[in-house]
Formats: sequence, structure tokens, C-alpha cells
Amino acid sequence: MAGASLRGMSGRGYGGAFARSLLVVTLCALFVSAGCKSTHHASHEPASLAQGGSGSALIAGSEDPLPSWNDGPTKAALLDFVERVTREGGPDFVPADARIATFDNDGTLWSEQPVPVELAFVIDRVKALAPQHPEWKHQQPFQGVLEGDLKAVAASGERGLMELFAATHAGVTTEQFDATVTQWIAMATHPRFDRLYTELVYQPMLEVLAMLRASGFKIFIVSGGDVGFMRAWAERVYGIPPEQVIGSRAKLRYEVRDGTPSLMLLPELDLLDDKAGKPVGIQQVIGRRPIAAFGNSDGDFEMLEWTTSGKGPRFGLFVHHTDAKREWAYDRNAHSGKLSRGLDEAPRRGWFLADMKRDWKVIYPFEQ
Amino acid sequence: MAGASLRGMSGRGYGGAFARSLLVVTLCALFVSAGCKSTHHASHEPASLAQGGSGSALIAGSEDPLPSWNDGPTKAALLDFVERVTREGGPDFVPADARIATFDNDGTLWSEQPVPVELAFVIDRVKALAPQHPEWKHQQPFQGVLEGDLKAVAASGERGLMELFAATHAGVTTEQFDATVTQWIAMATHPRFDRLYTELVYQPMLEVLAMLRASGFKIFIVSGGDVGFMRAWAERVYGIPPEQVIGSRAKLRYEVRDGTPSLMLLPELDLLDDKAGKPVGIQQVIGRRPIAAFGNSDGDFEMLEWTTSGKGPRFGLFVHHTDAKREWAYDRNAHSGKLSRGLDEAPRRGWFLADMKRDWKVIYPFEQ
Repeated sequence: MAGASLRGMSGRGYGGAFARSLLVVTLCALFVSAGCKSTHHASHEPASLAQGGSGSALIAGSEDPLPSWNDGPTKAALLDFVERVTREGGPDFVPADARIATFDNDGTLWSEQPVPVELAFVIDRVKALAPQHPEWKHQQPFQGVLEGDLKAVAASGERGLMELFAATHAGVTTEQFDATVTQWIAMATHPRFDRLYTELVYQPMLEVLAMLRASGFKIFIVSGGDVGFMRAWAERVYGIPPEQVIGSRAKLRYEVRDGTPSLMLLPELDLLDDKAGKPVGIQQVIGRRPIAAFGNSDGDFEMLEWTTSGKGPRFGLFVHHTDAKREWAYDRNAHSGKLSRGLDEAPRRGWFLADMKRDWKVIYPFEQ
Repeated sequence: MAGASLRGMSGRGYGGAFARSLLVVTLCALFVSAGCKSTHHASHEPASLAQGGSGSALIAGSEDPLPSWNDGPTKAALLDFVERVTREGGPDFVPADARIATFDNDGTLWSEQPVPVELAFVIDRVKALAPQHPEWKHQQPFQGVLEGDLKAVAASGERGLMELFAATHAGVTTEQFDATVTQWIAMATHPRFDRLYTELVYQPMLEVLAMLRASGFKIFIVSGGDVGFMRAWAERVYGIPPEQVIGSRAKLRYEVRDGTPSLMLLPELDLLDDKAGKPVGIQQVIGRRPIAAFGNSDGDFEMLEWTTSGKGPRFGLFVHHTDAKREWAYDRNAHSGKLSRGLDEAPRRGWFLADMKRDWKVIYPFEQ
């Protein structure tokens, strides 16, 4: 999806129109979320999902590395790509150290509806912090969040959204923020499924991660979401360590107080890792072009474009949300995870669509 | 060392006094370099240095993993640290995925005298580009570089330095810059040793890299130098891939021209990866605290401080340049690689000094 959660922090350098569009997306998302109660209770721990089914399966072996995928052109293309780049001596062989794959997170590895998970976190944090801020009862946009009056939040404009993010993502150290997210994600549950958010990861995509890993790929998340928010749980849930998570990020300040150093999160955006910001984030952190990229929205368009325009074998794929019954169906008119230009251009660019309804036997691990 | 090369690009956010000190350092370095001819000729290819001696040596085995180190407290401390963090069931055991070590580059892994290698690159690039810029003959600071008149360069001030970096590090794509550095580093030779710069890496440090790698560590360069400059050769020379190189960096802009995307280097600093910028760069890219850090100057102070103030076993080390005969002797009064506060505080902080003259049997691989 499109990193709606951090979008309000700063539109500098992207022009006023862009900043306004961010505002609209984020407020729409907030508005929808008003109907959802994000309840907190201790739930059963999720099973370790990092293995994702057949982690050690070999493509050429008898075991199917993608058992949750229905047979069809998309599954065949995935298997074919991995077979080609790993076949030593073949025309499309890629040395292991250049096998880099990037994955968007929201809507690509886990569900982003009815609102992106990080936005649920923002709302819950405002509620949790409210007792320390009695002034919020009478101060927008906090009053609106606390009273579920999203029209008031919307009226506070971009400045209001920046205040929401400053209050929930800044003014603390990186270690404090990590602890807060770790605690929240262990308890917060999804309003529709009443399960931990980390249980709403896509089983078929876990299998892709496992297949690529077993084939020598190094996997990076490249998401519009906040990098610290994802790092708090990505290794446990996806098997992707912190140094392989790229996201939007706030500026940092190194401070030493009473001899103890810390890194303070500042209320200012350092990188918006969305759209044209994704190739920038990839270059800053990875320093070379991926050979495979997976997304689900127009926010991932430039990542797929950058990845698949390099020389040699390349792979691009959009997860297409077509299953209103088991998950959600949305594309061109979505408030989060809009996929329009990508849908139009995928065929001529040679990008694949994973049609959730058609291609996936199961959506979530708990269905198995 | 201290990333003198990129310092002139921007002092924003660091205050006027800091910007002025950058200017002084950089101009001093430029001035010294006036006496050095950086000659170009095809030289013999350097042997692959990435193995660094005993790459597969086990600490507990019969083979010494640090054969170029003299026995003494520093070598003993290195061996002891690695033994402790890798001993399963021991009190200081660290899981493999948390074994992260960071290394400064200039003055820590290769020589930075008489001027940092990247500054030699800047001077050579101005000379190489001069035919395309006839106006430079009469335009400072270029005229000064071309005529070896560093007083004139100095007189052009911070603005002049920014122009030098814009002319040599920006206005090209990341791939063009990579190709330029790759070509230059394959040919440019050091004025004192008449060898390729990549031959002037420290054999004892290559052995430390190899020992840590064989012990499950993931190694990152964290340098004040430009990240693209280092990525062009760090994997070949040190065995450190691009995604494990952190450095100062210019802002990037994603562009699509005639359907071909590229990342354009802009003449504006995005991160100054020096002093307090080093923990920031570490957090942005790695996302967790290293357990070992190696530097040689006060520009590395905060990296060692951040690394060694975490819980559990920690290791900090400064390479101390004490060997005027085989390399150079400098610390408190150096124009590049000044080590003063670090020298004062190392004992009480438990940081080690590698005394080049006393601790190292050889400096460079070609001495063997």
C-alpha cells in the first residue's frame, strides 16, 4: 500500500498538490476506521510464521514450494523465474549475492484493510496517552480521535495530522518506540477477524519468501510504513532482520544524557518511502538494483519499474485484491492501496498479477 | 577518519562554527595534497584481499586467525571477545544474528594520508573534466585546483568547496558515478608507495574482518566518505557487499527519461555520516546496535560510544597511527583523522588501542 500512516508528517519537496492528496488519503482512512473498534486483549501467541510452509523445498525437488498457490500462469512464472536465475551455467543465471528481492508490506505481505495497521496503532496510542494530556479533550485533532469525530480531525488539516504523528512516533528514543510497538502488536487485534494483526499475513506470500530464501535470495521489505514500526516484529513474523527492513523514517538526533547515549525520534520526516521514494530508499540502503519486486499498489509502481528495467532476468508482481469474501476486493478506488496505473501497465511491462481469489488456496495461515 | 571529502557539501543543521571547521579541515587537506602528484597508469591488479589471511581459521583451532598481529593485550582482547560471544552456553554468548560489527574506512581499513583517497579522486576528476569546462581556467575554485594554487581555492570558501563536490559527485546517475569511481580506482596510484590505493589496506585489519566473518559476524563499513565511492570497490577489496556499506550520501532524485529510469545524484547532502551522524546512519540502515566498533579518529567517537554502551559484551577499538616509518604517525594534531578525545577517554571507557608500530607485524598485504 501507500504508507498513508506517515504521509501527513511532511509534504516538503513533493509539492502542495501531493501533500493535499496525502491528506485526503489519510483522512479517508481515519474516517473509515471510525467504525472499527481496535480491541485489546491477550490473545494466543501466533505460531512462528517465518518458515512459511515448505521453507527448505527445492524447486526441482518433488515437494511443491508453493502449496498454497493454485496452478496457473502466476505460480508457473514464479517457479520458472527462480529456476532460471539459480541454474548454474544457464543463460539467466544470477550469482547468489545479486539475488535481491524487495517486498512492500501493507497489502502485499499482510492485510491493510479496513485501515493500515499502523494507523490503528496511531489511534490506540492517542487514546493510551490521553490521560497524560488532559488538554487533548479540548484540542483538535486529538479531541476528534478521542471522540471518534473524524470530521473534526479532517478539519484540523495537514498540521493536525502532523501533530498526531508527532505525538505517537516522535519525542521518544528509538528503543522506547520499539518497546511500545512490541507491546502493542502483541495484544492489538483486528476488528473483523478478532485475531492479532501478525496473524493476518498472507500464507502464499510467506511461501514465496521461503522459496526465495531457500534459493539464495536476500529479502528486503520496502514499505511506506514507518521503519521502526516494522522492525519491531518483522524478524519474528517474516524472518526478515532489522537491517533488511526499509521504510519511511523520521529524522534522528544522537543525544548523551548523564553519560547514556540515545537516538531521539524527531517530528520531521527524513524519507517518505513511497512511490519515487522507494527506489531512493533501495539505493540508500541496498545500493544495488533488486532483480525481483513485489507490491500491491501504485505506491509500488516505481519500485517495480526500477527493478524490472535492469538488465538480465527480472520479476515484478502485484498482489491484486479480488477476494471480498476471504479478504477484501479493491483496486482503482481504494483509499489505501489504490492500484490503477499498475493495473493498466502491468501487461505491457511484463509484470504479473496474483489474483487473490483465483490464485490463492488460502489467505491466512490460520485457515490451514 | 572524518569524511573530509564530503564535508564541504553542506553544513546545514550543524551550525556555522561546525561548517567553518569543516572548511578548515578540507582546505588543509587540499593544501597538503598540492605537493602530491596522483599519477595514473595501469598497474598490476591487486590480489584478492577479501580473504585476509586465515579466513576459515577457528579461534579455538591450532591456526592463528591474526598472524599479522604481535602478541600483546590488544590481540589477546580481540581473541577473547570473539571466543566469549561465540561460546554457546557461556555467560557472554551472543546469537549469530546479533553479532554486528562496524568499521570506519579511512585510517581504519586503509591509509588516509597524505590526503583521504576520495579527495585525490576529487582533484583528479576536476582535472579530467576540465576540457569540457573551458571556463574553469578562469573560475575559482577550479582554476586553483588546475593550477595547484590552493590559496585561491581556500579563498573561494565553503561555496567553492560545494562547487567542487557538485562538479565531481553530483549531476550524474548513481550508475554513472559507480562506473567513474570503478575506472579511477583501478588506475590511480598512491604518491608515496606508487601502488594502487586498494593495495594500501591494512593486512592486520583484513584478518580481523576474516576472523569476525568466520565467527558469524555481519560486518558493516560506517564511514564519513561517500557511500557510492566506497561501494564501487568495497566488495572486491574487503568482501563487504554494497548493502553493508554506510557512508555520507547526497540526495537522490528518481527520474524517468524516454522510459528509462535512473537515480540522479543531487548537489545536496542527505547524511553526513561522521561523529554523531554515525549512530544515526547505523540506526537508519542496520536498525540495531552493533556489539563491536572499530575506528581511528574522533569522528568515530560516537560510534564507539553508542556501540559499547549497550548491554552485554561489547568491544571498541581505535587504530592508533604510531608508525611514521612504515605508515604515518599522527593523532592529536592531524588534519585528517584527528584522535584526541578518543585517546584521552579510551582507557576509562574500556576501549582498546591498536598501536600500529607495536601491534602490527606488517601494515600492507604486499609486505608479506
